Amino acid sequence: MLSEFDLIKRYFQRARPASDRTVLGIGDDCALLAPSPGRLLAVSSDMLVEDRHFFAGADPFQLGHKSLAVNLSDLAAMGAVPLGFTLALALPAADPAWLDGFSRGLFALADAHGCELVGGDTTKGPLNICITIFGELAPGQALRRDAARIGDDIWISGTLGDARLALAGCLGEIALDADAQALAATRLHAPTPRVALGRLLAEGRLAHAALDISDGLVGDLGHILAASKVGALLDVDALPAGPVLARQAPGLRRRFTAAGGDDYELCFTAPAANREAIMAAGAQCATAVTRVGRIEAGPGLRLADGDGAPLRMQLQGWDHFSDR
Amino acid sequence: MLSEFDLIKRYFQRARPASDRTVLGIGDDCALLAPSPGRLLAVSSDMLVEDRHFFAGADPFQLGHKSLAVNLSDLAAMGAVPLGFTLALALPAADPAWLDGFSRGLFALADAHGCELVGGDTTKGPLNICITIFGELAPGQALRRDAARIGDDIWISGTLGDARLALAGCLGEIALDADAQALAATRLHAPTPRVALGRLLAEGRLAHAALDISDGLVGDLGHILAASKVGALLDVDALPAGPVLARQAPGLRRRFTAAGGDDYELCFTAPAANREAIMAAGAQCATAVTRVGRIEAGPGLRLADGDGAPLRMQLQGWDHFSDR
Repeated sequence: MLSEFDLIKRYFQRARPASDRTVLGIGDDCALLAPSPGRLLAVSSDMLVEDRHFFAGADPFQLGHKSLAVNLSDLAAMGAVPLGFTLALALPAADPAWLDGFSRGLFALADAHGCELVGGDTTKGPLNICITIFGELAPGQALRRDAARIGDDIWISGTLGDARLALAGCLGEIALDADAQALAATRLHAPTPRVALGRLLAEGRLAHAALDISDGLVGDLGHILAASKVGALLDVDALPAGPVLARQAPGLRRRFTAAGGDDYELCFTAPAANREAIMAAGAQCATAVTRVGRIEAGPGLRLADGDGAPLRMQLQGWDHFSDR
Repeated sequence: MLSEFDLIKRYFQRARPASDRTVLGIGDDCALLAPSPGRLLAVSSDMLVEDRHFFAGADPFQLGHKSLAVNLSDLAAMGAVPLGFTLALALPAADPAWLDGFSRGLFALADAHGCELVGGDTTKGPLNICITIFGELAPGQALRRDAARIGDDIWISGTLGDARLALAGCLGEIALDADAQALAATRLHAPTPRVALGRLLAEGRLAHAALDISDGLVGDLGHILAASKVGALLDVDALPAGPVLARQAPGLRRRFTAAGGDDYELCFTAPAANREAIMAAGAQCATAVTRVGRIEAGPGLRLADGDGAPLRMQLQGWDHFSDR
């Protein structure tokens, strides 16, 4: 029988801190970090619950990846450089195979971003994964939701909708062939946080506002519009669809790019004068960036098709307390 | 039907940051904090699960208090000054009465410690409360578990065992009269984090090692001994029992003070030369401090009675993956 302390030691405590920013890691009442002088600390928490954010029986390696990825994505959306994270884990049982897979998926992504596990908690309970992540950035560089300005372009990183398409396949809403389902599912289960792009946008002061798209573009962009007290025009046919979704019917493509969910791409606004620099930043970190609309004075979000004609779509963002 | 955003706005988002350390609070991808130059950041996470850490139907005001108290207690055990915290909350439903009580209990304690809620997450799921707390302290002042030295006194703040006694009453292990049960239960449901004492011990460099007692003194002290590679002699009859436990039979008193659990008192070690200064620090923050043993070279923990005679007791620390 694996005890709580054995579990932490075997799966989560590593030989030495990965970074000299960590003065004291796992094993005391608190971890101790040494932030860089003069920089701001960015903090975000995400909680993933079985049957809500992932299916029971989800692959533990992918779950370890995704749990950290959604948090790294929040740092990316702020333009912050990852420092470290805490992990609080409620588990129905201390299952060695699950813990091995989960911790390997978690650390593979953590190591790729130089982001160290510094502490946390483990307890028995219905499966629940709560990560709090820390990053840092220079004052004045943060990509805040309230910073969009009239006339800004609206940009999207990567592609949208394949995660929602994979979910639709899992739920039997649509039928995909096995290879297409498997390809789309990589976007659902192993999203890529756009940390390097966010950092380039912040450090180069290329963008004004940003957020990461987790609940669907239309709903999430609405948060930027509300916080910045502006409106927007969005060219729905310009939205970059994931490779699997791109082969689906236009109606589905519009719906899942505009309001899919679980994309973990960045949506950001930037002055037109920065277009070339933004394309160069995207190229530098091998991340596609696509212009999809502009910020306007009139309140609300207007959707248009590729010809600029108004589009009426019934779209809804994700709400964790609705039963959709 | 309360949406996720309404819920956050109504119960958790307050008009303005409580502290000028918070550059950006709830509502963006990350919160932004401005740590004091040259100080270390202390970080801790605790996850509370229904039926594991509290009973189903627990009073939400007390639960809000306790959820933050156990985290503040971790800062206290490090000697850190609270800055802020994130709250991730999984709820079976958005129940206004529960949210009102929980948020009031949480903020009452947060305000008492100038510790601001800066961000978090809410989702639907089995009730789970995960708080990550941030504090700061000067380099070299942290009360680490590995810092006990041979010859140190061992000290305890406050009193021990009433929380365990209340649990025993709830579980029907013992019978207490209603008033005694109610009094002991305040220690179980509304522990007092010893933040001021921890800070005085750290800033005055009065103590070497410290931790907070959450899983029972004997087990938790064992972590100091292991990390510091020392042993200890503990005078079990010197352990300060809570007012309700103090009236119980000596055997029960010994057992619940030595290995009760849920005490959230500090156990710390300090050189004998600091005895007067430690008593003065306790008086300054109105927290009793009691000497209960000493750190020795020989490995392991030896228990003695009030006459110094060896005591043999079957005691066990709390392990979240055992089914005790």
